[in-house]
Amino acid sequence: MPEAGTGGIGRLAIVGLGLIGSSIARGARQYGLAETIVAIDRDAGVCARVRELGLADHVTPEAAEGVAGADLVILCVPVGAVGAVAEAIRGHVKPGAILSDVGSVKGSVVAAVTPHLGEGVAFVPAHPVAGTEYSGPDSGFSTLFSGRWCILTPPEGADGAAVAAVRHFWEGLGAIVETMTAEHHDLVLAITSHVPHLIAYNIVGTAADLETVTQSEVVKFSAGGFRDFTRIAASDPTMWRDVFLTNKDAVLEMLGRFNEDLAALARAIRWGDGDALHDLFTRTRAIRRGIVAMGQETAEPDFGRGRTGAAPSRDAAGGGTPR
Amino acid sequence: MPEAGTGGIGRLAIVGLGLIGSSIARGARQYGLAETIVAIDRDAGVCARVRELGLADHVTPEAAEGVAGADLVILCVPVGAVGAVAEAIRGHVKPGAILSDVGSVKGSVVAAVTPHLGEGVAFVPAHPVAGTEYSGPDSGFSTLFSGRWCILTPPEGADGAAVAAVRHFWEGLGAIVETMTAEHHDLVLAITSHVPHLIAYNIVGTAADLETVTQSEVVKFSAGGFRDFTRIAASDPTMWRDVFLTNKDAVLEMLGRFNEDLAALARAIRWGDGDALHDLFTRTRAIRRGIVAMGQETAEPDFGRGRTGAAPSRDAAGGGTPR
Repeated sequence: MPEAGTGGIGRLAIVGLGLIGSSIARGARQYGLAETIVAIDRDAGVCARVRELGLADHVTPEAAEGVAGADLVILCVPVGAVGAVAEAIRGHVKPGAILSDVGSVKGSVVAAVTPHLGEGVAFVPAHPVAGTEYSGPDSGFSTLFSGRWCILTPPEGADGAAVAAVRHFWEGLGAIVETMTAEHHDLVLAITSHVPHLIAYNIVGTAADLETVTQSEVVKFSAGGFRDFTRIAASDPTMWRDVFLTNKDAVLEMLGRFNEDLAALARAIRWGDGDALHDLFTRTRAIRRGIVAMGQETAEPDFGRGRTGAAPSRDAAGGGTPR
Repeated sequence: MPEAGTGGIGRLAIVGLGLIGSSIARGARQYGLAETIVAIDRDAGVCARVRELGLADHVTPEAAEGVAGADLVILCVPVGAVGAVAEAIRGHVKPGAILSDVGSVKGSVVAAVTPHLGEGVAFVPAHPVAGTEYSGPDSGFSTLFSGRWCILTPPEGADGAAVAAVRHFWEGLGAIVETMTAEHHDLVLAITSHVPHLIAYNIVGTAADLETVTQSEVVKFSAGGFRDFTRIAASDPTMWRDVFLTNKDAVLEMLGRFNEDLAALARAIRWGDGDALHDLFTRTRAIRRGIVAMGQETAEPDFGRGRTGAAPSRDAAGGGTPR
């Protein structure tokens, strides 16, 4: 059993063992960040699976019971559910404990949780900017947060020691921690994450609904660009429904800009303005280089897809290891 | 020197040694698809590099000279340039030879090339649905087309033997060949490739132009979804300018649908219609599964990014091997 050590967590309670929650559990264990890990999930099947996988020391579907004695409680449920969970655990989190979360939206989480904070419980909202398109306790892995940013949005007057403890915890998981206001976070994430997801979901939906091009054709010829979009359009429907409903203003604002720019692009195409197109396409190439240079993306062509697969077969039915 | 053998090509001439042209050269050599390979590129620097890389038996900047005696000539230049190249080689391609291409748009290529076809030259337009975001003779590789579709759009009355020879050639490169009309091709590719690229270029541009969120923030927090878009927005500006200018009608039609669907999504968000969102997001998940099942995409989480990188460092400046 790892020792708490200097700055470590004695008892960690994770509410919601999906991709993020189960990755935190695995990482906390692997990097010795907590002495005891408690997993809480209202779904009996998830609890059973968490037990099978040995991800925690205690597993329970009862949040109030699970958070008892915890030093750090991290809510890893969809952002639409954090209020209900905060209400359920109210009074069961011991004074001096820290309550945190991982939600992709911060303003609404703060609004939903703050009314239910118990006496002496420090609230340090967090958001690790990391994930995959998969869900559930099997999908997590300990290195999910390595080299990724984790944004903290401590409210004004937040306890400095609590913020430092949460920062230390996320650095222990390999993340780089940055602090900002909840409002600014929601704006930034609207453009770096929420609107990209919305656009991806939309184009996949549009392609699925065509009469002139079949779904089979869309799937077959997806390697020309479409398939890149389908990954984030395969993200958890519940999580993302809640993100859009709770970050509505920032998302609609950013979407408005996206639409204005798209109309200008469509005009350039209609009127054959090749220079305008070439200029934009040259600018955008530089942005990717910046992302690679910052260590936030692989430089491998095509994301390095399929490098480890067997040589594709030439099965005319379309099978074969994709690359 | 590989033998032409049954169905092989005697002398292959490739015009334009970018990603696609140089991949064809490498693949033709590796799989023994042609006895002799001639590389033609008007850029002296590219010719020099092609010689250094040993990609061809003969290298020349002169198209008319390079196609002399060729059995198969493949145009791998941006689709806006195919007409000029076809005109330049007119009368220099021997009767009985096949002229083909790799353009992402077929209608305009057919229109640009057909007036310049010499007597007895069979024209078999083609489009291998494959690529990466990189450009130039160094970026190609022999397996680029493995397991990918190559679409042929032979005009009505096209020579059956010529079509079969081109099909055989592409199958030799590992592709699965399908035939359709040029019009249908342009519609299909508008939704599976062209509009996705347009959307990606657009969102990267929109993100770069914000006043409230800095470019540095966009880059840092790009792992939340944005970075996926930046890859195809890093695609060759010249190639893509030409694609949009030459497939204008199909692109604008598909874009119109995309916009209608996006407006409906924005409405659902504004009015808090969580069910509509959840329904769409559930549907789109299934489409990705179909693409993976069809062998057109890896099932690895996050495209399998960074699996072979060293463990990320915890450098606060943001460096470290990305995953």
